[in-house]
Amino acid sequence: MTRIELYDTTLRDGMQGEGMSLSAQEKLRVAHRLDELGIDVIEAGFPSSNPKELELFGLLAGETFHHAQVAAFGMTRRRDRSADADPGLRVLADSGAPVCTIVGKTWGLHLQKVVKVDRDENLRMIAESVAFLSGEGKRVIYDAEHFFDGFADDPAYALSCLLAAAEAGAEVVTCCDTNGGTLPHRVAAAVADVVAALNPTGARLGIHCHDDAGCGVACTLAAVAQGAVHVQGTMNGYGERCGNANLVTVIPNLQLKLGYECVTDEQLASLTQAAHFFDEILNFTPDPDKPYVGRNAFAHKGGMHVAGVNVDPATFEHVDPDVVGNRRELLISELSGKGTVHARARDAGISLGDGQAGRLVERVKELEHRGYHFEAADGSFELLLRRETGDYEPLFRLESWRAIVEKRADGRVETEATIKIWVDGERYVRTAEGNGPVNALDRALRDALVEIHPHLRDIDLVNFKVRILDETKGTGAVTRVLLDASDGDQVWGSIGVSENIIEASWEALVDSLEYGMRVLGPPARRSSDEAASAPSS
Amino acid sequence: MTRIELYDTTLRDGMQGEGMSLSAQEKLRVAHRLDELGIDVIEAGFPSSNPKELELFGLLAGETFHHAQVAAFGMTRRRDRSADADPGLRVLADSGAPVCTIVGKTWGLHLQKVVKVDRDENLRMIAESVAFLSGEGKRVIYDAEHFFDGFADDPAYALSCLLAAAEAGAEVVTCCDTNGGTLPHRVAAAVADVVAALNPTGARLGIHCHDDAGCGVACTLAAVAQGAVHVQGTMNGYGERCGNANLVTVIPNLQLKLGYECVTDEQLASLTQAAHFFDEILNFTPDPDKPYVGRNAFAHKGGMHVAGVNVDPATFEHVDPDVVGNRRELLISELSGKGTVHARARDAGISLGDGQAGRLVERVKELEHRGYHFEAADGSFELLLRRETGDYEPLFRLESWRAIVEKRADGRVETEATIKIWVDGERYVRTAEGNGPVNALDRALRDALVEIHPHLRDIDLVNFKVRILDETKGTGAVTRVLLDASDGDQVWGSIGVSENIIEASWEALVDSLEYGMRVLGPPARRSSDEAASAPSS
Repeated sequence: MTRIELYDTTLRDGMQGEGMSLSAQEKLRVAHRLDELGIDVIEAGFPSSNPKELELFGLLAGETFHHAQVAAFGMTRRRDRSADADPGLRVLADSGAPVCTIVGKTWGLHLQKVVKVDRDENLRMIAESVAFLSGEGKRVIYDAEHFFDGFADDPAYALSCLLAAAEAGAEVVTCCDTNGGTLPHRVAAAVADVVAALNPTGARLGIHCHDDAGCGVACTLAAVAQGAVHVQGTMNGYGERCGNANLVTVIPNLQLKLGYECVTDEQLASLTQAAHFFDEILNFTPDPDKPYVGRNAFAHKGGMHVAGVNVDPATFEHVDPDVVGNRRELLISELSGKGTVHARARDAGISLGDGQAGRLVERVKELEHRGYHFEAADGSFELLLRRETGDYEPLFRLESWRAIVEKRADGRVETEATIKIWVDGERYVRTAEGNGPVNALDRALRDALVEIHPHLRDIDLVNFKVRILDETKGTGAVTRVLLDASDGDQVWGSIGVSENIIEASWEALVDSLEYGMRVLGPPARRSSDEAASAPSS
Repeated sequence: MTRIELYDTTLRDGMQGEGMSLSAQEKLRVAHRLDELGIDVIEAGFPSSNPKELELFGLLAGETFHHAQVAAFGMTRRRDRSADADPGLRVLADSGAPVCTIVGKTWGLHLQKVVKVDRDENLRMIAESVAFLSGEGKRVIYDAEHFFDGFADDPAYALSCLLAAAEAGAEVVTCCDTNGGTLPHRVAAAVADVVAALNPTGARLGIHCHDDAGCGVACTLAAVAQGAVHVQGTMNGYGERCGNANLVTVIPNLQLKLGYECVTDEQLASLTQAAHFFDEILNFTPDPDKPYVGRNAFAHKGGMHVAGVNVDPATFEHVDPDVVGNRRELLISELSGKGTVHARARDAGISLGDGQAGRLVERVKELEHRGYHFEAADGSFELLLRRETGDYEPLFRLESWRAIVEKRADGRVETEATIKIWVDGERYVRTAEGNGPVNALDRALRDALVEIHPHLRDIDLVNFKVRILDETKGTGAVTRVLLDASDGDQVWGSIGVSENIIEASWEALVDSLEYGMRVLGPPARRSSDEAASAPSS
């Protein structure tokens, strides 16, 4: 079985897509999730492009990955200087990443019209840049930009660019379809020639496709069939224009249908969950129609389909949904099976009777139907478990709250919130200002509770995400709020859903504080071992 | 140039997709739009499945199409009766549709486990059903269900099913990848054998693919390369599970990249508008990343891309966006400079002096630094341009607004908003309730303005997105709100940014209404030509 090297560029090329935005901490979470999924090389960014990207590589240097290597991305040296004096290449050499990927030109049109570099000088730029990084002890990958356009225009020159990289020590030479419009039969023909030409150099061949002709996945498969053994793409096909080749589709196609080796069976079975995690952290709604991992991918509508599947799933399913961690039918959730509920309860140290587990599954289904989604809200889920088993006491009883936002004639915006709550038979009324209504409610609630629970001061809300569930209903749509909170030791997630964004936020806020106070308690009570093994949402 | 017959099944197979719902009148509009686009055969439905489908065929019989023929869909006769006594076939014969498409089995697994029909009887069912409809004067298309699975299982039997249909008079025999999991190389190999086998019969070969392996388009192209001349698919890839092969992608691939003849150049230039029309009538937000027709399909972000496209579009574009009726989007972002601002102003019919362009670039940079992001907010960006050039008059002057959200002791949440505005020297004070604070503000504002601007009723907010910019600041973070609005003709985006989510929403709301009212004006004022060439955001 041929092994295919998986190279994920979600954190670099994927970030060119519309609406893609992640903090450095979130990028670290993405990198670890890619590592768990079995990705071989994680391209983390372009450290010369701005100081934030450079900072990310500093953070990555302190992280441990089970399997993946981190790659830093950059360009061939400038035409007017030697490779060792090129500041961009120096940044790559110093980045701490064991793999460096450099992109360079292969297409005469670009040399002539865009960068205005002579063809021979371009070959020297490629060779010297690769040799420099290789000499610095890096595994070097050469990305041949616009390769298929260059090959169509002048095959001999395009091949000479690849050979320059391979002979200078590039471990992998990648044919990139940068504009994304090449169809699979042309990819196959070009790659066949490239494989023959590269053979004597020992360099391996990579493929990097985009989806501008709706064939990003098929072009990738066509290249592998001709001998490419390194595949670049992004999670869920994120990327500029129509996106990059979607690794979430490529991986099961290669492994389940073509017999290549990419990831372990366990990793493949986590594919659906992983794909949803990436959407979640990027605040995108998972596309229900995505191959393999979409909520509809194994949904059966027609009665004949359902009947057929009951007799033999092979009649109407191209693969077994379990193999990619997806499931048959309409509602998907990592939590909605009894087995999962039992497993989660065990993790939380709660023992459930069978009737309780069944009722919880029903309750989760009902809540999911209303827009709840517990994958990233472990805190709210555990509170749900505890409410079912009676192992739960609320922090307070709410009488009422009110939030007022006012834009005054002088243009200033003022926000205030009042809460009325009961704790241990005593009534607390507190008013606070804030820079937004949820912030004001949070302050007023803390103001009341902190007198009884001074540990509340340790809990910070570290993450606040708002998702409009039915965006097409305009301002009348249902809102889902996800909060992450931390006490400096653990991080937990909570969720609220309502037509009213303030009510949804309130619900998540209360769950967040209750979980931190009631379930975890002050950090001093926990041993450091327990804290280390706790889920980090 | 080989002519490819385009067969659209949006109204039948496409309607199996999640959320697909159209009235009979809307289906007629879809059929006419498909006709205008140059589709050859419009499969309108399955008239035996329910009385509404039958009614649709009655309506269709009264319609005139320029070019397209209507097809009725059904199944081969039942095993226990003759074709002329089969009620389903009788409905097809009487449907008034000149084309009848019947689906039948080719896969032993289904014969054995699902329908429990003997293999020879199945061949008779196919032949007699085709012969009956052909004898009734219909053009008959035979759809071989699960063909590729059947062919993999028993190639000789699968071919004999196709031959039975062809020899009985089917004009087209279609290989269907019903479960959607077949990869392009397997489609190509099977189709090559089928073409050779069908050759003596004179029947033409069709292809019908789904996207379960993310290769629906590529499989369709692979079949055409081997000799299929009839292509089935749906608009925008609608369909159950992961959808059908997307004809909106297949058509330009065949015509622009492979030299086949499908539609006229004018029809191809209406492709983007047509694709958005289908989404619009189905109440879907057009996918911005769709090949050829998505808003991002020709978007350029990086400075080098923008510079390259300005020198020669071929450097960074796989086809000319005009050819498919799309347009280049130069995304307004930190990386792009004066050139982009000038180009966007030109598109909006505004001429900018060099000083103005420079100031605008500075202003955009400053706003982007504060969290604005004009990529998806074309409406707000154009208002910014117009404010700079003085070509702008606000809809109203704000005195103040106030939003109150209250959770009462009985658990009910109540929301009300009051606005105080001045229009033409007159003061308007309005209060409205809503299911959230932004909804209440929207209602109060419209209540005041609609007296002066009745066209406001035509403007709907179709999309509302909230993004927390620095999520790690918890509820004190900056919020970005993106709104999409539509007047039923065009769609535009607006943006608001503030620490206060209500203020950010208010800002986007006001921009949205001002752009719709001040820049576009009532749709009636625009000639249909203008509307056709206007950007659709």
